[in-house]
Amino acid sequence: MGKTLVLALGGNAITRASEKGTRDEQWSNIRATCRHIAELARQGNRILISHGNGPQVGNLLLKNELTKDIVPPMPLDVCVSNTQGSLGYAISQNLGNALGALGIGIPVAAVVTQVVVSEDDPAFKNPTKFIGPFFSEQQAAAIMAEKGHILKEDSGRGWRRVVPSPEPREIIEKDAVRALLANGFIVVAAGGGGIPVVRASDGTRGVEAVIDKDMAGQLLARDIGADALFLLTDVERVSINFGKSDQTDLFRITVAEARKYQAEGHFPPGSMGPKVEAAIRFASSAPGRQAVIVSLEKAHLAFSGESGTAITL
Amino acid sequence: MGKTLVLALGGNAITRASEKGTRDEQWSNIRATCRHIAELARQGNRILISHGNGPQVGNLLLKNELTKDIVPPMPLDVCVSNTQGSLGYAISQNLGNALGALGIGIPVAAVVTQVVVSEDDPAFKNPTKFIGPFFSEQQAAAIMAEKGHILKEDSGRGWRRVVPSPEPREIIEKDAVRALLANGFIVVAAGGGGIPVVRASDGTRGVEAVIDKDMAGQLLARDIGADALFLLTDVERVSINFGKSDQTDLFRITVAEARKYQAEGHFPPGSMGPKVEAAIRFASSAPGRQAVIVSLEKAHLAFSGESGTAITL
Repeated sequence: MGKTLVLALGGNAITRASEKGTRDEQWSNIRATCRHIAELARQGNRILISHGNGPQVGNLLLKNELTKDIVPPMPLDVCVSNTQGSLGYAISQNLGNALGALGIGIPVAAVVTQVVVSEDDPAFKNPTKFIGPFFSEQQAAAIMAEKGHILKEDSGRGWRRVVPSPEPREIIEKDAVRALLANGFIVVAAGGGGIPVVRASDGTRGVEAVIDKDMAGQLLARDIGADALFLLTDVERVSINFGKSDQTDLFRITVAEARKYQAEGHFPPGSMGPKVEAAIRFASSAPGRQAVIVSLEKAHLAFSGESGTAITL
Repeated sequence: MGKTLVLALGGNAITRASEKGTRDEQWSNIRATCRHIAELARQGNRILISHGNGPQVGNLLLKNELTKDIVPPMPLDVCVSNTQGSLGYAISQNLGNALGALGIGIPVAAVVTQVVVSEDDPAFKNPTKFIGPFFSEQQAAAIMAEKGHILKEDSGRGWRRVVPSPEPREIIEKDAVRALLANGFIVVAAGGGGIPVVRASDGTRGVEAVIDKDMAGQLLARDIGADALFLLTDVERVSINFGKSDQTDLFRITVAEARKYQAEGHFPPGSMGPKVEAAIRFASSAPGRQAVIVSLEKAHLAFSGESGTAITL
């Protein structure tokens, strides 16, 4: 009947690009998001939710910077954990309310999630992920000298910090997530791609990095043996030749076809690229596993093929 | 053999009064705390950890205030959830490392926890809990006029916001906590007393309040059917006639004796009062349940009666 389904929610499900990210804005967006998720639960699916945190962690980093002479600033791993708390709360509460409105008695639980990365990951030598507030070139030079952070110019909008975006290797709390799913819970986990940690001889410790949430989502989906991974985005389907006269929407493709389109450069690094890569990783991990890139609004139509781009082995 | 044990950690287990609360300070304190908790796990006990968040949520509220014209400030329920994320992370990581150092393979998981309070709770008419930064009398007047917050003078140190401290009525995530404990996890839950929410016709919503962490801990301890509740503090034992020539440390008392001493005014509201009340609630809930007020350092000696003040029915 139902399937085990991982939903990777984009940051736009929580704070839209035009918004500042107030409580009311976040709650309003998450309320709408959770109505769609409740619909997927009504179909009988077991659900695991991971989510982005870009705008939320950005606001925490900006607060850090503005108050650093008065309040101790917190490093990036702690800021990610802060957003796992607040967004885990927001999703637990709003999804609980949305399920309640439908008369569905499924409990929700959010788990604080650490994700192991490798210190040898090439990303640590080449930080690429922009995070936090914008600075002038002069401010950027001062921050680089003072903190050793790396800042780069971001698309004409100013200078911003870049941090490594290493590959997720292991979800530390995967057994907790499995236990909760097995006991009938909808679980929220690996928020913001997970809290990035490395393994050392004396245990794990946090690092200054950001893990791509779709990559963390596909790893978690494999760990729990999910049937499907839904990578939620603004568009209904993935296209090739995007924005050209011969743009073609993709309905159902194989991993081999996806790899071919990927090699041809159809999926730009900043937008569809990571989603397609995450989809390929999940779909290629075992026969029968389906990755779907789809809009949140149409996600309930994805299993029937009425919406989304499905990738299978 | 082992018992099911709830530990209610004080804020001083995380940030000491003399500290500003940097990452390094927090981690150093939590590392030491977790070595003691690992010792209790080595004794074979099943463990649930709840914790305070006073200094940590205070720093978030101060950041809110200092940046309110630039970054949207977050309400108290969201700030509590932020600290559940960061302290859940800190405890999960450091306890995992401490257990690893002892060769104990018990996994740890932190759950975002909402706690229901009643809108009719008398605390909402009489806010008593000081939180966040200090202000001058003039600033306080401006904040009261602008935001409708209530500020009071705090022991000659300046004006501070006071919020209601209502009774915890229900732990929303109690079943998730139970499922994880039953599956062999050490669980971190109800951090900061839990995220305070009220029930309305359309579901739950957050409120501006702070739930006493020891009171939330005793409710959670009853919900999971714990054998013992350890309320951790700076002193090894509770005393009567504290600071007087006839000061007497209490070793093992009944609920009836505790109620008698309480009525005689031996336990001041700001310090030992809430701990004794929480201990009485737990111990009186069923025969055989033991509440112990003890220092963290001596907690491993509590079951043998070598340390702490034990309260039983």
